Amino acid sequence: MHDFLTPLIWSENQLIFTDQRLLPHIEDVFIADKVEKVAQAISDMVIRGAPAIGIAAAFGWALGKKQKYSDQIIYDLLIKTRPTARDLSYALEYMLKHNANPLKSAFNYLQTITELELELVKQVSSVIHSHDRILTHCHSGSLAMYNWGTALGGINYAWQKQNKEIFLWIKETRPRVQGRITAWEARKRGIPHCIIVDSTAAYLISCRKVDKIIVGADRIAKNFDVANKIGTLSLAITARHFNIPFYVAAPKTTFDKQADSGASFIIEERDNDEIKAFNNNLIYEKQENYFFNPAFDIVPHCLITAIITEQGLIELN
Amino acid sequence: MHDFLTPLIWSENQLIFTDQRLLPHIEDVFIADKVEKVAQAISDMVIRGAPAIGIAAAFGWALGKKQKYSDQIIYDLLIKTRPTARDLSYALEYMLKHNANPLKSAFNYLQTITELELELVKQVSSVIHSHDRILTHCHSGSLAMYNWGTALGGINYAWQKQNKEIFLWIKETRPRVQGRITAWEARKRGIPHCIIVDSTAAYLISCRKVDKIIVGADRIAKNFDVANKIGTLSLAITARHFNIPFYVAAPKTTFDKQADSGASFIIEERDNDEIKAFNNNLIYEKQENYFFNPAFDIVPHCLITAIITEQGLIELN
Repeated sequence: MHDFLTPLIWSENQLIFTDQRLLPHIEDVFIADKVEKVAQAISDMVIRGAPAIGIAAAFGWALGKKQKYSDQIIYDLLIKTRPTARDLSYALEYMLKHNANPLKSAFNYLQTITELELELVKQVSSVIHSHDRILTHCHSGSLAMYNWGTALGGINYAWQKQNKEIFLWIKETRPRVQGRITAWEARKRGIPHCIIVDSTAAYLISCRKVDKIIVGADRIAKNFDVANKIGTLSLAITARHFNIPFYVAAPKTTFDKQADSGASFIIEERDNDEIKAFNNNLIYEKQENYFFNPAFDIVPHCLITAIITEQGLIELN
Repeated sequence: MHDFLTPLIWSENQLIFTDQRLLPHIEDVFIADKVEKVAQAISDMVIRGAPAIGIAAAFGWALGKKQKYSDQIIYDLLIKTRPTARDLSYALEYMLKHNANPLKSAFNYLQTITELELELVKQVSSVIHSHDRILTHCHSGSLAMYNWGTALGGINYAWQKQNKEIFLWIKETRPRVQGRITAWEARKRGIPHCIIVDSTAAYLISCRKVDKIIVGADRIAKNFDVANKIGTLSLAITARHFNIPFYVAAPKTTFDKQADSGASFIIEERDNDEIKAFNNNLIYEKQENYFFNPAFDIVPHCLITAIITEQGLIELN
């Protein structure tokens, strides 16, 4: 039985994904029995969230090896799917290093991730107090990692395991509206919440209706600059302007030890159709062709209160 | 013949509106032969933009008087339609003062607005240089005033009359996506432009791809705090963070002499359905019921470079 709150399960030699493109309207699965299908699942955003993408890549590697592909072919197929999420290359490097029994290695990778996930959400919950009104952006819950998630995982842990009273403000996160998935998960958990359009965040904060902001991350540089879903930078600037805490929650797998700062991050630009149509319904005119659709932005470390990892808080400002 | 770039025309004793709810997909009109229909046109956003709402209210008054309604009944019907836009009450006060021949007064009001509109757009164009990359929010063009508009009117004047090379960044402006109307108008004028989701603005500015921001206004307090479409505050904070100019363009009819500061403005909250569905297509689940939909936010004067009026610039910071 598929509960749709876990991003993927391995079953009968195939990877069964919760199809996040269809949520919350339709709960259905996407099945990958080949590494090419895993690559498609990642690039088409059947699965999303940096840590979850890493897990998918590990099992994708195992499928590729079963297809008798060379390491290079598998690596090339998977690495090009999403350029910004750090966990993708982290998982591929892990699999390259533990190549003797690929499926066993994928499960070992999964175990590693789930163990640090639990530590991470406990650390996130440590900054949450009862009656906090928390604002989040995009989706960083169960489906973005494995059991809990990162930012939303910690919020949920504080709610479910620690019985802290929480109110959750959810930004809808155009163009893909991942806020719908956050709201769907909040509803399944019973967390009181409210959805706003992205533009409303600054107004909410100016009205002193937000106590803190907690978001996930897709890649973190050595100087602690953070890449996350487009719209995160604006939130961080606004948080600083109104002097409220801005937290980033991410496991060590999201840290890029090659990048000195966010300036070296590749920011993925996605198809204009993501803006033009919604659920296949055209928002803009067909002849309207001038769109710019970067999927991420970079928050400089000077705007971040602390990065929360499974090993504790990195206090920044 | 209706050109759809003018928000309304008076013809054969009725007010013919360009139906802005249908643009840019469908060019159609909404006809009001009674003051009640004018009130509906304003509250349902058939017409929008503070100065254009004022013009509609003036002609609505004339229709109400033809229906033999008392001043009080007409005033009450119209004033409740949109609480934030200042021009609405300005126009009603004008009509109350010039009540002898209401239709003549409505045309006089229209003439006053169109005259100051031309002065306003000339003033706006004075801050625009050739090769400027200008970011705007919501729609502030022809349909928001009468012939030109406010912010977009000035940009268009610089482009069309002064041949300045301009590149226009257009925020889509959820939930109602008035950026579509801005893009539609830019395309009709031939102004090079690009549409972004609201969240992308900060990233664009951080990449130094924006030289200045020019927006309209719905109400301006005595201390020069500005109410404008939700999302304007976030832009102003981001402009200040990255040290680029943030201009507000508005005629004197948008200034509220009763309000000491923006703290006294009533911020209109609109129906959740504006967020939940788009072009009648459901974005969120039916059972999802927790939304917060304020239509405006308030930019404190300390974040504004200058307010541009028909009488010149009010330099603020």
